[in-house]
Amino acid sequence: MAEKVLAAVQVGVKETELREFDLPEVPADAGILKIEVSGVCGSDWPAYKKWEGPRILGHEVVGRIYKIGEVAAKRWGVKEGDRVALEEYLPCGYCDRCRTGEFRLCDFTDKWMGGTRYGFTSITEAPSLWGGYSTYMYLHPNSVLHNVPDHVPAAEAALALPLGNGIEWAYVEGGAGIGKTVLIQGPGQQGLACVLAAKEAGADCIIVSGLTADANRLELAKKFGADYTIDVQKEDLIERVKEITGGKLADIVLDVSSGGPATVTLALEAVKKRGTVVLSGQKQQPIPDFYSDKMISKYITLKGVRGHSFGAVERAIEMIASGKYPLNELCSHEFGLSSVDEALRSVGGEGVPGVIHITVNPWL
Amino acid sequence: MAEKVLAAVQVGVKETELREFDLPEVPADAGILKIEVSGVCGSDWPAYKKWEGPRILGHEVVGRIYKIGEVAAKRWGVKEGDRVALEEYLPCGYCDRCRTGEFRLCDFTDKWMGGTRYGFTSITEAPSLWGGYSTYMYLHPNSVLHNVPDHVPAAEAALALPLGNGIEWAYVEGGAGIGKTVLIQGPGQQGLACVLAAKEAGADCIIVSGLTADANRLELAKKFGADYTIDVQKEDLIERVKEITGGKLADIVLDVSSGGPATVTLALEAVKKRGTVVLSGQKQQPIPDFYSDKMISKYITLKGVRGHSFGAVERAIEMIASGKYPLNELCSHEFGLSSVDEALRSVGGEGVPGVIHITVNPWL
Amino acid sequence: MAEKVLAAVQVGVKETELREFDLPEVPADAGILKIEVSGVCGSDWPAYKKWEGPRILGHEVVGRIYKIGEVAAKRWGVKEGDRVALEEYLPCGYCDRCRTGEFRLCDFTDKWMGGTRYGFTSITEAPSLWGGYSTYMYLHPNSVLHNVPDHVPAAEAALALPLGNGIEWAYVEGGAGIGKTVLIQGPGQQGLACVLAAKEAGADCIIVSGLTADANRLELAKKFGADYTIDVQKEDLIERVKEITGGKLADIVLDVSSGGPATVTLALEAVKKRGTVVLSGQKQQPIPDFYSDKMISKYITLKGVRGHSFGAVERAIEMIASGKYPLNELCSHEFGLSSVDEALRSVGGEGVPGVIHITVNPWL
Amino acid sequence: MAEKVLAAVQVGVKETELREFDLPEVPADAGILKIEVSGVCGSDWPAYKKWEGPRILGHEVVGRIYKIGEVAAKRWGVKEGDRVALEEYLPCGYCDRCRTGEFRLCDFTDKWMGGTRYGFTSITEAPSLWGGYSTYMYLHPNSVLHNVPDHVPAAEAALALPLGNGIEWAYVEGGAGIGKTVLIQGPGQQGLACVLAAKEAGADCIIVSGLTADANRLELAKKFGADYTIDVQKEDLIERVKEITGGKLADIVLDVSSGGPATVTLALEAVKKRGTVVLSGQKQQPIPDFYSDKMISKYITLKGVRGHSFGAVERAIEMIASGKYPLNELCSHEFGLSSVDEALRSVGGEGVPGVIHITVNPWL
Repeated sequence: MAEKVLAAVQVGVKETELREFDLPEVPADAGILKIEVSGVCGSDWPAYKKWEGPRILGHEVVGRIYKIGEVAAKRWGVKEGDRVALEEYLPCGYCDRCRTGEFRLCDFTDKWMGGTRYGFTSITEAPSLWGGYSTYMYLHPNSVLHNVPDHVPAAEAALALPLGNGIEWAYVEGGAGIGKTVLIQGPGQQGLACVLAAKEAGADCIIVSGLTADANRLELAKKFGADYTIDVQKEDLIERVKEITGGKLADIVLDVSSGGPATVTLALEAVKKRGTVVLSGQKQQPIPDFYSDKMISKYITLKGVRGHSFGAVERAIEMIASGKYPLNELCSHEFGLSSVDEALRSVGGEGVPGVIHITVNPWL
Repeated sequence: MAEKVLAAVQVGVKETELREFDLPEVPADAGILKIEVSGVCGSDWPAYKKWEGPRILGHEVVGRIYKIGEVAAKRWGVKEGDRVALEEYLPCGYCDRCRTGEFRLCDFTDKWMGGTRYGFTSITEAPSLWGGYSTYMYLHPNSVLHNVPDHVPAAEAALALPLGNGIEWAYVEGGAGIGKTVLIQGPGQQGLACVLAAKEAGADCIIVSGLTADANRLELAKKFGADYTIDVQKEDLIERVKEITGGKLADIVLDVSSGGPATVTLALEAVKKRGTVVLSGQKQQPIPDFYSDKMISKYITLKGVRGHSFGAVERAIEMIASGKYPLNELCSHEFGLSSVDEALRSVGGEGVPGVIHITVNPWL
Repeated sequence: MAEKVLAAVQVGVKETELREFDLPEVPADAGILKIEVSGVCGSDWPAYKKWEGPRILGHEVVGRIYKIGEVAAKRWGVKEGDRVALEEYLPCGYCDRCRTGEFRLCDFTDKWMGGTRYGFTSITEAPSLWGGYSTYMYLHPNSVLHNVPDHVPAAEAALALPLGNGIEWAYVEGGAGIGKTVLIQGPGQQGLACVLAAKEAGADCIIVSGLTADANRLELAKKFGADYTIDVQKEDLIERVKEITGGKLADIVLDVSSGGPATVTLALEAVKKRGTVVLSGQKQQPIPDFYSDKMISKYITLKGVRGHSFGAVERAIEMIASGKYPLNELCSHEFGLSSVDEALRSVGGEGVPGVIHITVNPWL
Repeated sequence: MAEKVLAAVQVGVKETELREFDLPEVPADAGILKIEVSGVCGSDWPAYKKWEGPRILGHEVVGRIYKIGEVAAKRWGVKEGDRVALEEYLPCGYCDRCRTGEFRLCDFTDKWMGGTRYGFTSITEAPSLWGGYSTYMYLHPNSVLHNVPDHVPAAEAALALPLGNGIEWAYVEGGAGIGKTVLIQGPGQQGLACVLAAKEAGADCIIVSGLTADANRLELAKKFGADYTIDVQKEDLIERVKEITGGKLADIVLDVSSGGPATVTLALEAVKKRGTVVLSGQKQQPIPDFYSDKMISKYITLKGVRGHSFGAVERAIEMIASGKYPLNELCSHEFGLSSVDEALRSVGGEGVPGVIHITVNPWL
């Protein structure tokens, strides 16, 4: 009799239910992961609010190889029992983007183009087990795996993707480095990951802005290396940045906030002449009062970004494994499979207050 | 008795008058240029429409060293009689930007910050001779000179700055190179300079878009290397770009148009995933329907740019001197000092029709 | 009864013989190529002179998909009858290098590490058909394919890899571009490919040096865009480069020669302060009188390179397909399978004189 | 009566004597620095061993503006009493290199070309005061100044140039950053500066190699962030690097040692495929057994470097001023003007043992 898999399946807007699946057969070039934990990404909240058919959410997945086909074992260089973190992407491996190291933009797996990826694809696509809020997950032949040392606590290992994003956005795209002043708008898990990346990269001055309700997160930002925090409801962001920098403004502004569009125009104000603004926070609306002329007069580069490269996730796991930062403080809550709705609502601000990064442990 | 200088001084909105000045004394670290011609830049038109005090416009200046102080001769490596092209900038030479090769953004000479520069500064600032629509111009100690070979026709030498811009924007900032598809919005002198630069850099496919009234300029774009031109009043820009590129869109979009803000949002449509948009055309208004989320979903980099680096102008002069391109076709009109008003109005579309690049020859 | 394959198998030092193989079964993730032609690479000569077990040489392969498994067809986006050029590499697709766009250095396929690749691997490794001097070749699941338009002559299509090298070395690694002076040492097929790449990239001045025996190749270099050629047996290389450049020396020196080690030390002499030297020509011996201090005093960057990236080969095929350059002049000779020994000896200078790029056509 | 200046003038091989000079007149575009301390650079030793005419050595100079001309005050943005650190360079400000941010290679000041610079130029060139082992120094119009905060101890401020070198070589040229493994050969003041820069830039693993006699310096390397040190007289460098990196070798090797040429060939062994070797340590002899083929097979980039950019020195002063590292431990000895010979001999290993970075304080 087939082994059983238990998963929290999204069955409607803001609604999941527990369902049982048979553990699928394993093709030679695929495998099955026994999940330890799955992190709850900020992007799970908009997905959860939208009904796009039944699916298992969760794409920040850490676990151990449970079964593996012969071909996959050779290709991936892993065996049963090995501990890995997965990327959400399932890149084809053969297109121009995959050939040039930009596999996160491969059309096969690009969610903006309806691609297949973890934590996103419907259970109607065999073998259904595409998400992390589950006891087991299918390892598609296109999976991108990273080794995770045994000593790393599971909840910290689940930070591999958000911290990978932070490294990609702050360091690779933003150019955070020795002597740079970096302003990070939004102290959520992505903002905090950007703080860690900027700090690790040698940024001279790190400023984080948020709301009054973000007080705890701003406090945590300081523990991770932020030099200054700004409550934009109590202080004028631009005036404060001028004050901190002696009028020089920021070399790099990272807008990772998911609030209204005002942060985009503020970013253009807060960045210095010849500076860089990195945008990853989606606004779901046009930006009012967006003067492109300001980009010309200040010679600004504005980069829209999303996701992470392979190297950024490798670097993230190394940073996590080093134990150099108190990452356990990021790992605020753990929920079981039966509490996935609460976990998701909490990330959206409608559940448990004070969450930072939540993991779902399917074995609780 | 002092030698006399004749100059067209802007004395009001869209109004110049001829005035005589004494040739100033030459300090040891400065000089006097005897002007051959001054090109009329597209940016002269908005300046001409605004009254900011009396000044001599014209900053695309070519001429010969008429007098030179001992210190300047040594520093600049030139002597009386040498032929040079000037940059509009007068960088201080000592600030961070000057020390790092970004002197065009030096606060001392940045017009967005009220700095001193050629073709911009008031005659009330001694010794008055800051502009190119004049028989002689003052060579400030901070001047940036480029040698110009004797065999180059003066009107073509006056293209050093606009072509320098084209090289900076299309090649240095945009990354035009082997195999790239480049869309250039706006076939004015800057757009045509971008065509030349993209062609020289090995771009695989160059597309130029303009209005029906730009028919002549679009034709010229083809002579300079454009593979396709698009009349946006007769064809749908995005559909046409898709058709030309087999649906792949453009690697690089250069918006050098000075029309309405629609070109900015069109640029985000016309560029491919992971592509670059370079903006230099000012819009004097906010961009309606600017969705920053599109920059994220397409992973677009948007660069506001202005002006040129030292190297770009050196490369421009080499390109001009090589005789490789029929640049004389860019040099559509020449006016004398007494016709500076007509020259400026023509660049603004209110004078002689069909102009591309105009030069003012003060000795006509 | 199985279809038959005819191939020229290397059976000893400088010795091949024709052998017949059965056309292998095609796994779902693999295929069979019907070869049109295979180019003879300069590196075939040292391979041919060394006996490393029986193998089919030839790795610049152009042909049509003859059979293809279902999985491979989907992954590669091709069907039977499609025309493709192959890379020599068979990258694993899963290691760090493959994930970051550097697949040519993947250990699985790195010949310096005994990897599997076309034109190199023994016939004792199933299914034997690893080389291009054959009527058919096995398409391993790891194959890297590039589409080739039907209108391109086969012999020119076989230039995809050498021209890809030229683009990688001169443009990507060397930084050839607008205004650059490039010296290319060695006018063989690689040197000529570097000329084409440097020209396409907008290099201002291209100089090619060779021996008296290279007179024809130097002549061809001029047709491809070289501004100057130097016969190093008749002229002093450094004196001549100084003369040509007005004492400024070269921005970029490409040493693609396979002669003695003197070209390396000459490259350090010929390059200007802060210049780049790209080395791809192997010397099989240490470099006498290599003063690293000269690299410090002149602030030189010296890059060892080999092979090509995916993008460079794509760009090469676009350049070939454009018909912009008289590439047929590079395609000096065509041989049949029964003349593979002669073809190889000719590349090594022991056969037909005056060869530039040879192709083997297995259907002659 | 003119004020007097006391300086240690080199009057022969390894010989200085105290001489008195008149404080020179100050032209409008120049100034006089009252020196606090001058650091003794490793390169002072070879200079001291060579007799090139009478001169005042010392070019790591920190002091206060004593007198300043009106023009210089405006250009440099300083006034009497301001505290500054000087670069050794006196760039012309007008050549291609100065215009493009590479002023350290400006011919005017390039010592390899006999240029004028601090700590190098003869006292026969007016006004003689070109070196730091003196109570006052002439501030030439071409001087490059950096502000130094008052709270920084003088001996630490004198580290601005060596630490600037470390930042330039390890970070800017070497690419030290998040996740990188960096091997530094030679734990002298430059090697230790490279450790600091690599650490600040987020390098994952820093290894420093030296001799048994370097035990103290290797210990200090650990305090500055080195993860491992290797005594190459007791351990096999390559074996140890393999062991530490799990066989992966180093991403970046910095050879800042001044010993024999063996470190260059070891660097090619210790660096991984596609890695970077940065060379700044001069060898005064050719490198035996330099196989350029190894650079090709491993796809290595080898960079000869010297000196620092403006930005690197700014970053260095920020790092020093931050108090983040125990830099006082680098500042091992202070000597007075009458002990300059002892200071120089100590740097050369012929004086006081155990020196790391020495400063000369002319007021002791």
